Amino acid sequence: MEKYLEKTKVLIEALPYIKKFYGKTIVIKYGGHAMVSEELKEAVINDLVLMKFVGINPVIIHGGGPEISRMLKKLNIKSNFINGLRVTDEATLEVVEMVLVGKVNKEIVNLIEKAGGKAVGLSGKDAGLIKAQKKLAKNPEPTGEEYLDLGYVGEITRINPEILLTLMEKDYIPVVAPVGSNGNGEFYNINADEVASEIAVALKADKLIILTDTPGILLKEDDENSLLSKASVAEIRQLIESGVIQGGMIPKAESAVQAILRGVGSVHIIDGRIAHSLLLEIFTDAGVGSMLTAF
Amino acid sequence: MEKYLEKTKVLIEALPYIKKFYGKTIVIKYGGHAMVSEELKEAVINDLVLMKFVGINPVIIHGGGPEISRMLKKLNIKSNFINGLRVTDEATLEVVEMVLVGKVNKEIVNLIEKAGGKAVGLSGKDAGLIKAQKKLAKNPEPTGEEYLDLGYVGEITRINPEILLTLMEKDYIPVVAPVGSNGNGEFYNINADEVASEIAVALKADKLIILTDTPGILLKEDDENSLLSKASVAEIRQLIESGVIQGGMIPKAESAVQAILRGVGSVHIIDGRIAHSLLLEIFTDAGVGSMLTAF
Amino acid sequence: MEKYLEKTKVLIEALPYIKKFYGKTIVIKYGGHAMVSEELKEAVINDLVLMKFVGINPVIIHGGGPEISRMLKKLNIKSNFINGLRVTDEATLEVVEMVLVGKVNKEIVNLIEKAGGKAVGLSGKDAGLIKAQKKLAKNPEPTGEEYLDLGYVGEITRINPEILLTLMEKDYIPVVAPVGSNGNGEFYNINADEVASEIAVALKADKLIILTDTPGILLKEDDENSLLSKASVAEIRQLIESGVIQGGMIPKAESAVQAILRGVGSVHIIDGRIAHSLLLEIFTDAGVGSMLTAF
Amino acid sequence: MEKYLEKTKVLIEALPYIKKFYGKTIVIKYGGHAMVSEELKEAVINDLVLMKFVGINPVIIHGGGPEISRMLKKLNIKSNFINGLRVTDEATLEVVEMVLVGKVNKEIVNLIEKAGGKAVGLSGKDAGLIKAQKKLAKNPEPTGEEYLDLGYVGEITRINPEILLTLMEKDYIPVVAPVGSNGNGEFYNINADEVASEIAVALKADKLIILTDTPGILLKEDDENSLLSKASVAEIRQLIESGVIQGGMIPKAESAVQAILRGVGSVHIIDGRIAHSLLLEIFTDAGVGSMLTAF
Amino acid sequence: MEKYLEKTKVLIEALPYIKKFYGKTIVIKYGGHAMVSEELKEAVINDLVLMKFVGINPVIIHGGGPEISRMLKKLNIKSNFINGLRVTDEATLEVVEMVLVGKVNKEIVNLIEKAGGKAVGLSGKDAGLIKAQKKLAKNPEPTGEEYLDLGYVGEITRINPEILLTLMEKDYIPVVAPVGSNGNGEFYNINADEVASEIAVALKADKLIILTDTPGILLKEDDENSLLSKASVAEIRQLIESGVIQGGMIPKAESAVQAILRGVGSVHIIDGRIAHSLLLEIFTDAGVGSMLTAF
Amino acid sequence: MEKYLEKTKVLIEALPYIKKFYGKTIVIKYGGHAMVSEELKEAVINDLVLMKFVGINPVIIHGGGPEISRMLKKLNIKSNFINGLRVTDEATLEVVEMVLVGKVNKEIVNLIEKAGGKAVGLSGKDAGLIKAQKKLAKNPEPTGEEYLDLGYVGEITRINPEILLTLMEKDYIPVVAPVGSNGNGEFYNINADEVASEIAVALKADKLIILTDTPGILLKEDDENSLLSKASVAEIRQLIESGVIQGGMIPKAESAVQAILRGVGSVHIIDGRIAHSLLLEIFTDAGVGSMLTAF
Repeated sequence: MEKYLEKTKVLIEALPYIKKFYGKTIVIKYGGHAMVSEELKEAVINDLVLMKFVGINPVIIHGGGPEISRMLKKLNIKSNFINGLRVTDEATLEVVEMVLVGKVNKEIVNLIEKAGGKAVGLSGKDAGLIKAQKKLAKNPEPTGEEYLDLGYVGEITRINPEILLTLMEKDYIPVVAPVGSNGNGEFYNINADEVASEIAVALKADKLIILTDTPGILLKEDDENSLLSKASVAEIRQLIESGVIQGGMIPKAESAVQAILRGVGSVHIIDGRIAHSLLLEIFTDAGVGSMLTAF
Repeated sequence: MEKYLEKTKVLIEALPYIKKFYGKTIVIKYGGHAMVSEELKEAVINDLVLMKFVGINPVIIHGGGPEISRMLKKLNIKSNFINGLRVTDEATLEVVEMVLVGKVNKEIVNLIEKAGGKAVGLSGKDAGLIKAQKKLAKNPEPTGEEYLDLGYVGEITRINPEILLTLMEKDYIPVVAPVGSNGNGEFYNINADEVASEIAVALKADKLIILTDTPGILLKEDDENSLLSKASVAEIRQLIESGVIQGGMIPKAESAVQAILRGVGSVHIIDGRIAHSLLLEIFTDAGVGSMLTAF
Repeated sequence: MEKYLEKTKVLIEALPYIKKFYGKTIVIKYGGHAMVSEELKEAVINDLVLMKFVGINPVIIHGGGPEISRMLKKLNIKSNFINGLRVTDEATLEVVEMVLVGKVNKEIVNLIEKAGGKAVGLSGKDAGLIKAQKKLAKNPEPTGEEYLDLGYVGEITRINPEILLTLMEKDYIPVVAPVGSNGNGEFYNINADEVASEIAVALKADKLIILTDTPGILLKEDDENSLLSKASVAEIRQLIESGVIQGGMIPKAESAVQAILRGVGSVHIIDGRIAHSLLLEIFTDAGVGSMLTAF
Repeated sequence: MEKYLEKTKVLIEALPYIKKFYGKTIVIKYGGHAMVSEELKEAVINDLVLMKFVGINPVIIHGGGPEISRMLKKLNIKSNFINGLRVTDEATLEVVEMVLVGKVNKEIVNLIEKAGGKAVGLSGKDAGLIKAQKKLAKNPEPTGEEYLDLGYVGEITRINPEILLTLMEKDYIPVVAPVGSNGNGEFYNINADEVASEIAVALKADKLIILTDTPGILLKEDDENSLLSKASVAEIRQLIESGVIQGGMIPKAESAVQAILRGVGSVHIIDGRIAHSLLLEIFTDAGVGSMLTAF
Repeated sequence: MEKYLEKTKVLIEALPYIKKFYGKTIVIKYGGHAMVSEELKEAVINDLVLMKFVGINPVIIHGGGPEISRMLKKLNIKSNFINGLRVTDEATLEVVEMVLVGKVNKEIVNLIEKAGGKAVGLSGKDAGLIKAQKKLAKNPEPTGEEYLDLGYVGEITRINPEILLTLMEKDYIPVVAPVGSNGNGEFYNINADEVASEIAVALKADKLIILTDTPGILLKEDDENSLLSKASVAEIRQLIESGVIQGGMIPKAESAVQAILRGVGSVHIIDGRIAHSLLLEIFTDAGVGSMLTAF
Repeated sequence: MEKYLEKTKVLIEALPYIKKFYGKTIVIKYGGHAMVSEELKEAVINDLVLMKFVGINPVIIHGGGPEISRMLKKLNIKSNFINGLRVTDEATLEVVEMVLVGKVNKEIVNLIEKAGGKAVGLSGKDAGLIKAQKKLAKNPEPTGEEYLDLGYVGEITRINPEILLTLMEKDYIPVVAPVGSNGNGEFYNINADEVASEIAVALKADKLIILTDTPGILLKEDDENSLLSKASVAEIRQLIESGVIQGGMIPKAESAVQAILRGVGSVHIIDGRIAHSLLLEIFTDAGVGSMLTAF
């Protein structure tokens, strides 16, 4: 009985958080280690289903995980690199889409159903959700060409959130694979962070949560104790300018800044390697990552 | 962090229960010690608000608690008794209504608001919710008269649940004081158990939970270890016939049987003296009382 | 037959008035002698029900009538006065609420039902209808203190009309007792005129009708023939400045001016001592009080 | 003032009747003298508009009044008669439709608008409201032929009330001219009593009121004091069989019986020569005609 | 089979046009020769029904065709002319309305039904659709009087499109006769082009199509090869100023300019003498008239 | 111009067919050669989009086409056969799902969008659309075992059409890949004919159209002139019993019979090798296959 009383206490402690996010839309970028470990996968899925049942509208955008490389290898498709950047040729694109949409997306849908939720998997082709065009990639090397041809790598031109709103209204959890179409039959592989950010903006989401394989934004690279817990848009910009935020974290931070400036309530870069880090972020006061806000 | 992880585990464990009761209507008879102790009061109110936020539609019917006697005493109104039964004369009725509707009901509404919920208090007069007539009380004594005149004690003739459905649809928690009107300007004090049972039937509730000052139905009077955890309608009837269920528990048991036969999913007689017994009943496997079901 | 033909003539004469107010919201402050006399009470209630059936949306705010004093006396609670103003201590507040909400409010609801209407009684605590805070009462006497502590006397901070709109949409007549809560469990007794005025503003009412025990605004005190039939905001302001409007009529007139400036169509201060003065005001050309308008 | 008070009394006396018919559908056959006299016309129109404003849904079916004969005469179209029955040839039909639909119907619509109501005029061709076929008229004379060819006189095969429901929902008063189409481009003149009766059945009307130029059903022909105030279906049948009901009243009585058997609440044959006889019937206890009911 | 394959090809070729106008509102002025020839009539009606079934919302405004003159002649009503303009006296107005509303309008409704559509015929009196006043006609002759009294010829003061929207929502085709009322019982005959233009503005129509007995706007009078296929508002204005557009085409052109400036997408003056010119205009690239647009 | 007039004639000829199927649900099994030829693919897609725009609700279930074999070959996955039946092992299942859901399904969605329609691709895992279990395949050979283990080949246990209805209401064309889940994380490859038939039943479809690589049901094998144009359920049963219908057509015919008996209006087995055979079937009188009906 003691044990049960303890549990009710925890539920009651969650009440203020439940109230706070009731009816809110939270966009989640699901990627990294949390897509690999069976235990983490189950934790993320359960977190999503719980969120739905306590009145939150979660929308999932996922990456491809290690499945894509595995399948490319099986099919003996080798990637070309131009100046260090991977090129998505037609054969690669076909595999990327099949794995993302036909395997990874549906596995997430299936796991949500198994956990008691209702989900619908979408690619950006469905219902004109993600319109995209060929990405013009700046050449980072001084080889004379300004842009590199990376093949079927796309950038978003427009999000049509109608299908997401339709599904959310009927209490489905939308699960989105980062593929976009140009409306003329061609389509592109798109960076999942970018898709999550643009969908969060289109839905005027209250939160955008990015599951990563880091503790969040670190002030000193490789020092997990140097976590930046909370920062405003102004502070983030200064940290980028002063060189504190570096490397791969720069695009994530810049994309977060953009999302906030265009109406998303807050952006959270959290540690997907911790089980239930989503619940920790939403329903407790535990600091599980970096929270970026307007002020 | 350990502590927080423990909490997320508890939330995840609650998920199957949340799913089970999502969208369900649960009628709660709130009375006894749980209306007296400040700590229990707060626990019950928090339980109700949590239930609402995780998708349950709770409806509360409350008794008068010790407030009525206190006010009658202050006003120096003495109760008459006929053959051991208390008579509700006009002066008493006025006080009963004022305390139930003007004080107890609004205190519950106020506490729910303070805890973050939205509530509307109703008496049975509002919107024609409870129609009643004078109760014909059988004379338990062989004094020659078949019925006793207990004054303004009523019995329900009809429940009109329209206002409850209107409020539930707009996400208010209805809080009902057990007063009924005959439609011609006269009104009656009604037993709160009876009101809860009839409202549960009218709403086709999934559960009727009665908070009492006992552990539930006891197979041996005064032996709290003899709790009947679960029983079917047939079993309950046999226990009444064989004299195992006795005294004040007989009407509660009979009323539960009637509610189940008329469509309520299950009836729970639970121990209101345990904090959060509502949550324990709904969100855990702890046995906190007696559960009566059809089969 | 002659008699019947006369009646149909009267109905037809009412048609232009019925058309004029069809679908309109009229807020009525119900108080004074019209709450005491059984005959007047019945007349007011019938007027309300008729208004509802011919397409008007009436909303009632009532005062406490003589019931509060009667109950305070019974309970031997004496009122303290500070510099001539009555103090509402905790014991008094308890009685005020019980009588207003538990007795007077429900009696009105019951009478409306008896007359064939559907009503729901509300206190300002229900559904967060009236949010209030302690009123800072200016000390009228030069005793050194600027403000007086009048106890639990409140002033309105916010009206949330959602529950009124919900009930009106379902054709209920809302009946409101002038009690407000601060959202933290404390509540206050509020002046009913003030509540009526604020609710009229929140509902963008077409009319606010105040039933008083005077013929309306008198240009000469005590001379009932000096009734001001109609005045604009500008005229009223001038009458206050020039001292023609005096004493207890000043706050009523100022509150009317405020209501009109904040969007109420017109304010009517009428003689509640005349039976059916509500109908007279709305459905005939009889002058039964003072009508205040924007221009 | 006395006069005004008298008026409010009349309004209050109408309240029980208003309540009784609130939300009810009343089909009115408008014909006879009430379509000729300007004073009666205005009275009928005002009655209809008042009915609408106090919550009744009136539906009007009108005849042609004296306009049709006037126009036929102007155009020098002579009617043929076969065995005493008028034949509607093509030239006549054209005039009948033009007058009914283009003049009489729109005049009623215009008068309703002038009186403050909203109306839409319909012929049975609109929205497939009245489907009809050529009427097979039994030959009353023993001339050898069983049926007579009366030309474009039709009988109803189906009422599609969809357009009436659409208009009533938007608070329009539908005004119907008794013309029906066979769906293949041919159309027919139909008896207005028959149309009223069939529309009352299709709408499951609470009342069907037929305005006539008699006091109602008379037990002795030409003796206006022999009015049958109230009769059941069984009684009416017996009166027909026993020959008390005679001549032109037989089809009206039989049609009333049919309407009641097929679900109309009651049928009223009233005296359209009395101003406001509609109001008298609905809002007072005056006996203005014959009321036929199921039992 | 070859034949059938050809047909499917045509259907597929229509697809881009169907997509383009799906859900759009198109107001059609129906008049001239297309109302006389049985073959053209049938073609227009079929075009309207097809438009409805492929998702367009057509609204028809019709003129009187030759029926009015025919009936005036039959009734021996002679028209007065003042300074060359026809006067609509009361006798003429009566005939105009009867023919327009009672005959022409209902014939169109009947033909639409026969072709499988659902239509409701309206005059401007119905539901307050067209409010009008007496038209002040400028005297074209220098006879001293500035205005001429043309009797019951009206000009539009207000369109209330509510009834049109109600009918369109329920998938009826509204068919409107050009009669307007002043709300006080008087009514007027109105130019059908003017009614079509004002209704197109009130409905924010995508297209206004005017069926005429010319190929469209001709740059050289009587030279059908000088058709102006397409022009902007600016070009039209210049053509009027420079005298290229002359005579009866000036008011049509000016009215089109007004409609476009007040929000109608485009105005088409097309040749009603060609069968299916409506379909040609909407579903093919054939040039069947003059199209006027904003730029 | 002649050409255009011809086209309008064809559109008008299609009108009766458009009316007939307006608002109807048609389930289409898309497979065979029509999924291979680029020209046929485009024709099918255009047919679907046209159907949608003229008010039909098409729902597509597709097979895998030659893509699956191509991919299995690329991945060097060899199929096992047991007694002549192909076994779907885990490696095969993974490929089947990836190709069906990630490639074929999304290509159809993309083509519909390109043709101007709106589509959403679904697998049976989405929204719990297709629940399935392992199929018990009867062993056709007398090898002692009654059932064969064919691996992840499933049979449908339940269709939940909720997501299809949601999408159709919002005017999306649902495109379904024949994969089903058992709700516990396992999933199965299912025969597309079976999925189409069960979805037609669940949607109470008016028509189920199966695109095949034959002219329809042939009475003499290999004789395309022996096409059975139309047959009732009784006739089909007799043709099966008498051995006229043979081989692979037996399951198709039996499945059609079942669909009709369970409420589908008619089943059409048509020749997918003819361009626009869908349009031919729906919008012309051409006989393009076999039509099976209840009687």
